[in-house]
Amino acid sequence: MTEVDRVDVPRRQDTQLAALSALASRVRELTEAVLYTDVPEDEIAAITSELASLTERLSAARQPPPGIMAGSHGLPCQPGSPVTGALNPIAPPLEMTPDPDGTVRSAFTLSAVYEGPPTFVHGGISAMILDHLLGMAATVNGTPGMTATFDLRYRRPTPWGVPLTAEGKVTRTEGRRTWADGRILNSQGEPTVEATAMFITPKWPRT
Amino acid sequence: MTEVDRVDVPRRQDTQLAALSALASRVRELTEAVLYTDVPEDEIAAITSELASLTERLSAARQPPPGIMAGSHGLPCQPGSPVTGALNPIAPPLEMTPDPDGTVRSAFTLSAVYEGPPTFVHGGISAMILDHLLGMAATVNGTPGMTATFDLRYRRPTPWGVPLTAEGKVTRTEGRRTWADGRILNSQGEPTVEATAMFITPKWPRT
Repeated sequence: MTEVDRVDVPRRQDTQLAALSALASRVRELTEAVLYTDVPEDEIAAITSELASLTERLSAARQPPPGIMAGSHGLPCQPGSPVTGALNPIAPPLEMTPDPDGTVRSAFTLSAVYEGPPTFVHGGISAMILDHLLGMAATVNGTPGMTATFDLRYRRPTPWGVPLTAEGKVTRTEGRRTWADGRILNSQGEPTVEATAMFITPKWPRT
Repeated sequence: MTEVDRVDVPRRQDTQLAALSALASRVRELTEAVLYTDVPEDEIAAITSELASLTERLSAARQPPPGIMAGSHGLPCQPGSPVTGALNPIAPPLEMTPDPDGTVRSAFTLSAVYEGPPTFVHGGISAMILDHLLGMAATVNGTPGMTATFDLRYRRPTPWGVPLTAEGKVTRTEGRRTWADGRILNSQGEPTVEATAMFITPKWPRT
């Protein structure tokens, strides 16, 4: 029923996943520190050089990127996702969970790493989050697919550094096409970005 | 004429910018190594711990994030941008340059870090790139603004690991509203994602 059955995926063991999650989390802190640091240039250079050796040590044994695995709520999980992946240092990472009625929700706070206009989240980051959330809503609906069209309305700026929520749900299906609506809300519950996406389910063998 | 005059921005010195760019570049390599690594768990734990000390050393002196500076081509430059920022480890980072006719272009190759469906770029990453590129086209046009609406059509999957290009241009303006069209092209020159955005220029004092 899920992509798990369709994709030949390397499976990382649970203990390795936990170790890699902790590592990715540290890389996120490092990433943020790079944007804020004001240490002397020779110290930056020394740290840069030490990072290169850590990267070399990490690269001593390699495997394919994580791919798609079975996750909670019967949903596929992509540990390397740039949006939700615990193993991907560029992901915030967002947790997205489905309600019984099919609404997918996420609560999150973004850092300066995701900044577009000063003090606000980059409009493209909001788009990325909503694309992923609506894709998840299509999957929850039993009609997973690739994004075909995606339309966004930016109602007001989305601030970073404060709690935000996002929600999305399938509104209708027609053959292999599925439409979903969603939005990001600020701490006052006001919509900052609204989106509609249409997904097309590939002609995979459905089970 | 640019945001540079409007935003109170901390200015990093050129030599510090260069050192931080090199650092961010190393963090990008590290980020990719995290997705591929298959070293033993005790080695992952050791590296995780060393990263924490490097982050602590970087955080010994802090300043506000980079903000917006004067850049080349008379355009504002945002070193901390998650799309184009040399100082932001999550940015690929993309270089975007304007043609004399106002078309903004970018040539780039994305890594597994930006993966959505297996072997393809996340649709939200393509959206982020196009939002930024079209915003740049609006700025080049002398009508910088915030994204108001943004509509995408996904024509075919966008592969990572191969050279891609993106291009975008303003098509019309009406009062404070500016429309721009753009697209991402694969190595065969076929459009993978097409987009139209409408930007609204804030009521800043124009100079």
